[in-house]
Parts: sequence; C-alpha cells; structure tokens
Amino acid sequence: MASAKPASGEDSLIARYFRPLATHPGAFHLDDDAAALRPWGDDIVVTTDAIVEGVHFLPDDPPDTVARKALRVNLSDLAAKGATPAGFVLTLALRSADEAWLKPFAAALGEDAAQFACPLLGGDTVSTPGPLMVSVTAFGRVPPGKMVHRSGAMPGERVMVTGTIGDAALGLAILRGGKVHAAASDKAAREALVGRYRVPQPRVALAEAVRDHASASMDVSDGLAGDLSKLCGVSGVSAAIDLEKVPLSDAGRDLVARGIVGLETLISGGDDYEILCIIPEDRVDAFVQAARDAGVTVSSIGMVVAGGTVPKFIDAEGREIELERLSYSHF
Amino acid sequence: MASAKPASGEDSLIARYFRPLATHPGAFHLDDDAAALRPWGDDIVVTTDAIVEGVHFLPDDPPDTVARKALRVNLSDLAAKGATPAGFVLTLALRSADEAWLKPFAAALGEDAAQFACPLLGGDTVSTPGPLMVSVTAFGRVPPGKMVHRSGAMPGERVMVTGTIGDAALGLAILRGGKVHAAASDKAAREALVGRYRVPQPRVALAEAVRDHASASMDVSDGLAGDLSKLCGVSGVSAAIDLEKVPLSDAGRDLVARGIVGLETLISGGDDYEILCIIPEDRVDAFVQAARDAGVTVSSIGMVVAGGTVPKFIDAEGREIELERLSYSHF
Repeated sequence: MASAKPASGEDSLIARYFRPLATHPGAFHLDDDAAALRPWGDDIVVTTDAIVEGVHFLPDDPPDTVARKALRVNLSDLAAKGATPAGFVLTLALRSADEAWLKPFAAALGEDAAQFACPLLGGDTVSTPGPLMVSVTAFGRVPPGKMVHRSGAMPGERVMVTGTIGDAALGLAILRGGKVHAAASDKAAREALVGRYRVPQPRVALAEAVRDHASASMDVSDGLAGDLSKLCGVSGVSAAIDLEKVPLSDAGRDLVARGIVGLETLISGGDDYEILCIIPEDRVDAFVQAARDAGVTVSSIGMVVAGGTVPKFIDAEGREIELERLSYSHF
Repeated sequence: MASAKPASGEDSLIARYFRPLATHPGAFHLDDDAAALRPWGDDIVVTTDAIVEGVHFLPDDPPDTVARKALRVNLSDLAAKGATPAGFVLTLALRSADEAWLKPFAAALGEDAAQFACPLLGGDTVSTPGPLMVSVTAFGRVPPGKMVHRSGAMPGERVMVTGTIGDAALGLAILRGGKVHAAASDKAAREALVGRYRVPQPRVALAEAVRDHASASMDVSDGLAGDLSKLCGVSGVSAAIDLEKVPLSDAGRDLVARGIVGLETLISGGDDYEILCIIPEDRVDAFVQAARDAGVTVSSIGMVVAGGTVPKFIDAEGREIELERLSYSHF
C-alpha cells in the first residue's frame, strides 16, 4: 500500500487484515508501492466506483455488507462490459482504525474477492474526519477490442435485462421506514429486499455471454429508465419498453399490485446492479441459452427504435407513461 | 464515468470540465462505464493514493495545487517503480458542485495530465458531507517483469536520492505559522518551500534510469528515514546514511544552520516525493549520467549494509543520531 507506515497503526492494520486478501502474485504481498498486472495479450478494462456513508450506504449498515457493496458495484460494471475480473485496488477513508469494524469488513471483502476471482492488488488507507468512504478501482480482461460499450445499439435489436428491477430501491425504502416498510409485512420479503440494497449480485457469470452477443451493454446502477436513456443517448437511438415485461420480484409485484409503490418508482430507483444489454435479433436465442448455462435469468423488455428521444415506457393499455425523473442524481 | 447521470448536475459538470482531459482513445470520451488499456506486451503497473482535505492538503490550498498534488503523488510512485505513465482514473468526493473550485481544479489536472503524458481514463464523482477527497489510481507501463521493487537491495550497494529532502515539511511548517514561518524571512524562499509542499515534482523523467539501474526503489512520501527503513525491511538489509550528504535546499540548509529546525525533522518529514533508490556500485556512474541526461539531480547518501535493524543515520562527528519518529502516521 502506497502510504503504509512502518510499525505504525496503519501498517499493522494493513498487514493483519488486508495482506491475506492479496493473493495475486502481482500484489507483492502489499509490500510495495504498486502492483503489476501481466495482461497476456488481453486489454485491461478499468472501472472505478466509490461509496460514501450516508449517500450510498447507511451509517448502520453492517461492515461486511459495505465491503461487499464496494467491490460488487465495480464487478457489476466489469460484467456489463464483458470483462472477466482480474483484481482491484482499494482506497479506504476511515475516521479511526476501528478494529471492530475493519475485521468483518476485511473478512467479507476477502470472501467476495475469492468468490469472484478478483484479488486485492493494493490500496491506500487514509484518515478522514468525515464520513467513511470506500473507493474501488477494479480491473478486468477482454480479448483486444472486445470490451462492450454503451454505444453500438441499433434499431430493431432487443432490449434485455438480467434479474429483477426495483428491489434495491424498495429495500432502501424499507430501511428508511414509511409506507413501504409498513406495507411489506412479511419479514422474509423485507429482508430479501434490504439484502438487494445492501449486497448487490453482480452478474459476473454473464460476462462472456455479453461479450459474445451484446451490441451494447451497461449495468443498471442509477435506475433502469435513466440508464437505458444514457445507453440510447450514446448509441444515437431510442427504445420502446413494454412495462409489463420489466421483471419484478414477487415482493415488488405485490407492492405494485397493492398500489403501495408505482412501477415508475421501481424503474427509476437505483442500486439494481443488473445488466442492461442490447442483443441483435439473430443472437437472442444463443444469448438466452448462454445466460441459462450461466445461471442468470434474462428478460426481453422491448426494442431499440430509431430516434434521438428518451426511451418510451408503454403500459399494459398501450399508453406511454411520463417519468418525473429518470434516475437518481447526487447533486 | 461510471455514475454519470443524464442531464444532471453531475453529468454536465463531467462533460464540461473533465471530458476535455480524456484524450486517451481507451477513455471513450468518458461516455462509458469503463476504460480500456491496451498493454502491447507490457506489464501494467498500478498505484493508488488519495489526498484528504485537512490531512494531506489544507482547506485553503488553491484548487489547482490540489489537483496537481493528487495526480503527482501517484506519478511519483510510478517513476520510483520504473514505470512510464499510461493514464489515471479519478474519484472526486465533493461537498457540492462548486464550479469556482472545479474549473481551476480541472484545468490544472489537464495541464499535468498533458505534461506527464498521463491522460484521464475515467472516474467517479460522489457527494460527501465531509472533507473533500481526491483519490487517483494511476497506471504505468514496464516491460514484463521489470517493475522495480522495494525489495532487492544488497549490502554494498549505494543509497541514492533525487532532488532535495525536507523542503515540503518546511513548507507545511510555514503554512502553519510558528517559528519556521518567522525565521524564513525571505518571501521567495518561503514561497519555494510552500510550493514544494503543495505541488510535488514527480521524477517521471528518471523512470527509465531507475528501471535500467536500480536494484530497489521507492518514492519518499512519508519521510526519508521512515521510507528507507521500509525499503530496508522488505529487502532484509540495513543501511548507513551519512547525514552530511543528505541533499538540502539552500533554504533548508540555512534553517538547519541557524538552529531553527533539526536535520532529523527534515529527514522524518513527509511529502518530499523524491526517489530513493539503491544502485549497485558498478552502475553508479551510468545511473548518474542517465539522471544528468534526464535533468534530475541525484545524490549518494550512504551504503546498504547487512543486518535487520533500522538504518543508521550518522552525523559529521561520526555519531549515530536517534530519531524519535521515523515518519508520519495517519493514525
């Protein structure tokens, strides 16, 4: 770690908690100022995402879930780009070297690093008087030129999405109390939704299928509607989405059916960490089969159409619904 | 940028200020979720360092100096590892989207990125209620296996350092007022020392010479004494340093001569961002010549010796001086 100190609190913390995670030979046991990646002919895909206490996670979220979220939001980006995880670096801004927090944080980070074959390569630990912040830069591999972009979607291609949409937004609403918390009376359902908010399920297993079949792809982190709008914008196209086909969990479907939340809340909420990808019609069957082989559910939710406007979201009666806001903005 | 939002404050800020910096083709104009580096057979060296307001820079430091420091502390690591800059990603935690701060920040970052041939590849902008924080992960290239490590120093080899030591610590002391500020009555000298604190001079031009000649190397960021101790520890050696040979600036030498500060303050202060490297005796002449060609001053300050103890610092009378602390620790 670049700012490791000898015989200091920081140095011994790094040694105790993070060195066991540095299993990659190019991490040099965190004894050096830098790590080295040997690409073996691949392109190295780089993505970076930070999470801040009180903004992207809640102050009382358990440390193990904070660790997993910090890594997984980056793994989600890599998967959407068709990249296989290769490793990550970590910047941790802490108010104090609180071992009761660091120990479960590092343990969970190590479990996720092993599970997703994405070892810790290095990092920096800094003190801050402010909120806790975890910044991860993650690396993936693709064959040269094979990273999948936001651009590339063409009219007539299929809009597909993994998993279910809106659960994390519902989980956050439950944690904040209020009507969703009151309405979600089933404890198991509540916990499942909160789990979706705290611990995303990055679709790493789908990376190869995305690389092989998608003409454009991104992960859904700021809401399906807003993220699709970004993809369409960069691709220079629009899309028509059949709202009935947007995949919801049973809990989400129930809350919508009972009128507790509107579907528009679910498709403009954040933190889904699903993959939104565009599949040419003649590749759809192969993609669906590859997703099945990878154990990831995919749903077809609409079509790419010509035009430079924001995507249309069409309800069961064929009406286009108006979205007040497409996605969450930090400012 | 991974969390860019359409038509949001964050998105338009990114477009306005940071997109012009993303000159690398693999940055995809910051329109994507990730960047791609094509290594062309090189190893990719990765380093990450964050700077926090009130910890690594002062709240009233000008935004252009904050930008330069954030990038340059990372460029310094790359140079010490023998790596040629290839690009960087930026995580910016801001209290608000303050354009009067962001504009000069981005302009200076762009100038440095161009000067050091290290283009912006991507990043993330997050809001924080706490202190401003700038985290950079920088990438460099070396031929396979040629990254220079902290380990590798052998007894009998020369300890060398670039530039001058202790100026940044004096600059920080001046900014904090007190006796150093009062003693440094010459305005130009004061400004030069403050400049060393605020804007490091990474020895990027020396990277190739370090790669060609050094058996071990690191940058001096937490104080010469502490950083040498780390290098010795990882290499399994010790060192004997001739304090008279530690290169000081005229201003530093003057303050030591007048008894305002002790030499031990200068060699245990932080933020030098010079390169500390170990050169085998038969390579010293070639290294000095290569450094001269690169326009970087290098000084021989002592020898690597056998042993597992902390380095010895020996004064003009041949006495070993005791250092109360080897370096700065954040905790």
